[in-house]
Amino acid sequence: MSERNTLDDELLEPTADEAERDVMDSEDRLRPDFVAEVLDAVHEGDAETARTLVEPLHPADVADLIELARADEREGLVAALAELVDAEVLAELNEHVREILVSEMAPERVAELAGELDTDDAVAIIEDLEEDEQRAVLRAMEPDDRAAIEEALTYAEETAGRLMQRDLIAVPTHWNVGQVIDYLRSEPDLADDFWEVFVVSPAHHPVGTCKLSTILRSPRATRIADIMVEEQTLIPVGMDQEDVALRFQKYALVSAAVVDPSGRLVGMITVDDIVHIIQQEAGEDVLLLSGAGDGDINEPLAPTIRRRLTWLVINLGTAILAASVVGFFQSEIAAFALLAVLMPIVSGMGGNAGTQTLAVTVRALATNQLTSSNTVRMFGREFKIALANGLSLGVLIGCGVAFLFHNPMLGMVIAAAMIINNLVAGIVGIMVPVTLERLRIDPAVSSAVFVTTATDVMGFFSFLGLAAAVGLHG
Amino acid sequence: MSERNTLDDELLEPTADEAERDVMDSEDRLRPDFVAEVLDAVHEGDAETARTLVEPLHPADVADLIELARADEREGLVAALAELVDAEVLAELNEHVREILVSEMAPERVAELAGELDTDDAVAIIEDLEEDEQRAVLRAMEPDDRAAIEEALTYAEETAGRLMQRDLIAVPTHWNVGQVIDYLRSEPDLADDFWEVFVVSPAHHPVGTCKLSTILRSPRATRIADIMVEEQTLIPVGMDQEDVALRFQKYALVSAAVVDPSGRLVGMITVDDIVHIIQQEAGEDVLLLSGAGDGDINEPLAPTIRRRLTWLVINLGTAILAASVVGFFQSEIAAFALLAVLMPIVSGMGGNAGTQTLAVTVRALATNQLTSSNTVRMFGREFKIALANGLSLGVLIGCGVAFLFHNPMLGMVIAAAMIINNLVAGIVGIMVPVTLERLRIDPAVSSAVFVTTATDVMGFFSFLGLAAAVGLHG
Repeated sequence: MSERNTLDDELLEPTADEAERDVMDSEDRLRPDFVAEVLDAVHEGDAETARTLVEPLHPADVADLIELARADEREGLVAALAELVDAEVLAELNEHVREILVSEMAPERVAELAGELDTDDAVAIIEDLEEDEQRAVLRAMEPDDRAAIEEALTYAEETAGRLMQRDLIAVPTHWNVGQVIDYLRSEPDLADDFWEVFVVSPAHHPVGTCKLSTILRSPRATRIADIMVEEQTLIPVGMDQEDVALRFQKYALVSAAVVDPSGRLVGMITVDDIVHIIQQEAGEDVLLLSGAGDGDINEPLAPTIRRRLTWLVINLGTAILAASVVGFFQSEIAAFALLAVLMPIVSGMGGNAGTQTLAVTVRALATNQLTSSNTVRMFGREFKIALANGLSLGVLIGCGVAFLFHNPMLGMVIAAAMIINNLVAGIVGIMVPVTLERLRIDPAVSSAVFVTTATDVMGFFSFLGLAAAVGLHG
Repeated sequence: MSERNTLDDELLEPTADEAERDVMDSEDRLRPDFVAEVLDAVHEGDAETARTLVEPLHPADVADLIELARADEREGLVAALAELVDAEVLAELNEHVREILVSEMAPERVAELAGELDTDDAVAIIEDLEEDEQRAVLRAMEPDDRAAIEEALTYAEETAGRLMQRDLIAVPTHWNVGQVIDYLRSEPDLADDFWEVFVVSPAHHPVGTCKLSTILRSPRATRIADIMVEEQTLIPVGMDQEDVALRFQKYALVSAAVVDPSGRLVGMITVDDIVHIIQQEAGEDVLLLSGAGDGDINEPLAPTIRRRLTWLVINLGTAILAASVVGFFQSEIAAFALLAVLMPIVSGMGGNAGTQTLAVTVRALATNQLTSSNTVRMFGREFKIALANGLSLGVLIGCGVAFLFHNPMLGMVIAAAMIINNLVAGIVGIMVPVTLERLRIDPAVSSAVFVTTATDVMGFFSFLGLAAAVGLHG
């Protein structure tokens, strides 16, 4: 944590707390001089200094420190920090960095660390292992933990079943508040991280939820069935994590019951496990649209290059397609080279306008703001925007070109091409992602290729075609 | 909510619950036929049917329904639903839609609705009003609520002070668990939405936090000071909401104390108010990079057009700059028009590669993964990726062009230009956003202009310049 307090308000001398605060900058990032200090200590073989420096840090910051080190420094750093790299740190680590660290650990050590975590965090660590490593780790685990993890692994990746904890508090409908409190006090092995109690039927179907604040504020004799909220959001165990995240967000949930297909309560998802999914799912659109995959800076180089290159090669194909349109007009260009100077303006501006519409559409689809109920209206909206902007840009560039080159016809041609290409950009920019969404293809992954192909091809074709049609010459 | 349960597991006939489930599709969106049904009822003046249909919905879904209606249908819809459009619905509404609805309400009605909400939600409604409307609403409020909102409005927009609730549970260090529970039971006016209790010194400085689950699981005689967590994250009241969101995410917080500059506890932020900020801040990069502003599909048309057009005009300037580079080579192009055909491939591919690096860098900066500690390493990483991809694409297009046009020199020129432009794209793609971040300018807002200018200019210059230098001709 970045700030601590002592019981004594009057303690004004610099304390360990203030020293600790200096480790972080104002945006909760580890300061580079602190990172360098730790790494220097490790290089000099002074593991004790490194440990003393790192010891006050929160596990999330220890994980950041390991990620900030160079790949070749990490092994030494982790060895020096030893037991400070605990299960919590492992759970906070970037998956690519963790994968390498874990692959160097003995299966028994991985099993021990995983055993200290909630099911969802343990699963996150174990699901990335090679199959034989996974088996070895599971064999080394306590039977209870092992069963929980093996069950979680039967659900598909990125579903509620992988995210949920099995440790939750479920009480029968006939209990009263006093019984619930006594039960919570008497069972030392219960989970500590819960914010709601689930009320279940004899068949273990959830029938209501009760916030801990409600329990705390009600007299002991109150029946739990009288204060529980019956309207509750049940998460099917197979639900995609993106939909789980949207549901948490929409209904401002702090925790939710997970049910199997027969309606039995099988787990609980808490909001702290959801925030990073919300962040990741919302942030990935810009990466996917650019063809950078998940854009993780900790991913090894080879798969990163392969992923980005695949996208670039696909785009090379579309660039060649657009270039071939220009190829049809070589004689016009040879006769009037100014056409070649101006044509990238038309195609490029169409690309920019198309990207705007595309970005808005992809986000509106991802946040469920654009649904079948308002698609037609949004088409109309984007068309109006494209028309307004196309007219403005067309008039602007048209007048400029006509004046600068003393060629009114050239001005009219580029103005018309600009208007046409902006309309194409607006229409394609919304049509492509909406269509892909209907076809259940992630619009963020494939839309950009179609949109830039359309704006490039139409940009060149409308400008050079019109120029040829009216017989423009220098 | 999308699913409800009854106490009776055996109830198998279709119930109101199942009817309700049919209202939503599998991704928690209102089904278009349901939306149409409600709007048809409103059109036909059958307000009662509309109300019956809408009544079972969660406030978040009522808000969605209003957003999904056309702007000219909304007034009628809201009038028909009457008291179903309550304070909760208002809090869930998109700000642009809410602004119009609220501007048509009497100040007394707005004051009444705002009075039913938590401070943060009330502030969100009132902060968007015109100054005189704001004064009228505040005058109509209860003195307590009014004071709370006026205080919140003294903090800058998008800071912790605007997000926090003032209703929180603070207890002195010398209390025991029993006293805390008795206090919570005896005060009927306390807030209901809290997940932690804050322990404060006599000077009202937070000294620790205690999860409700810990309180519930501890015997009555336990001193609260013995079970509280002393390490706690304190949010300064002036902290930017984006940093608050990152902090909640990093430390997996459910609630956090907000302190004024003197360290006094002045409010509390809960995670449910943070999830939509996380979503919004993470999702806005793709919109900002494209120049679509906040890309809200509910924003009125005129400001949307203005914002997008501003961006397009700036890009028009850079497109003209790039075109002027082509202008220097008109005689080469007139002599060998194939150069004009191939040049957009070089500039376009550079743009694509630059956008990949840019997207990765902007996200890594926004999530605090790219800090001064690893900037140099990330430069090296992007350089290697650019080199690998530039070589691959250069060889690919170079061989293709040499073969297709029986012109090995042309193949070598385009290969070299492609490699150069990919390197430019990689370097500029990371250098621009990192530099802007250092200058405290949002890299997502302005990076794209610089990057595409660089890749366009260098694409044209390297290809046409090399072609001119080696004296290429058809």
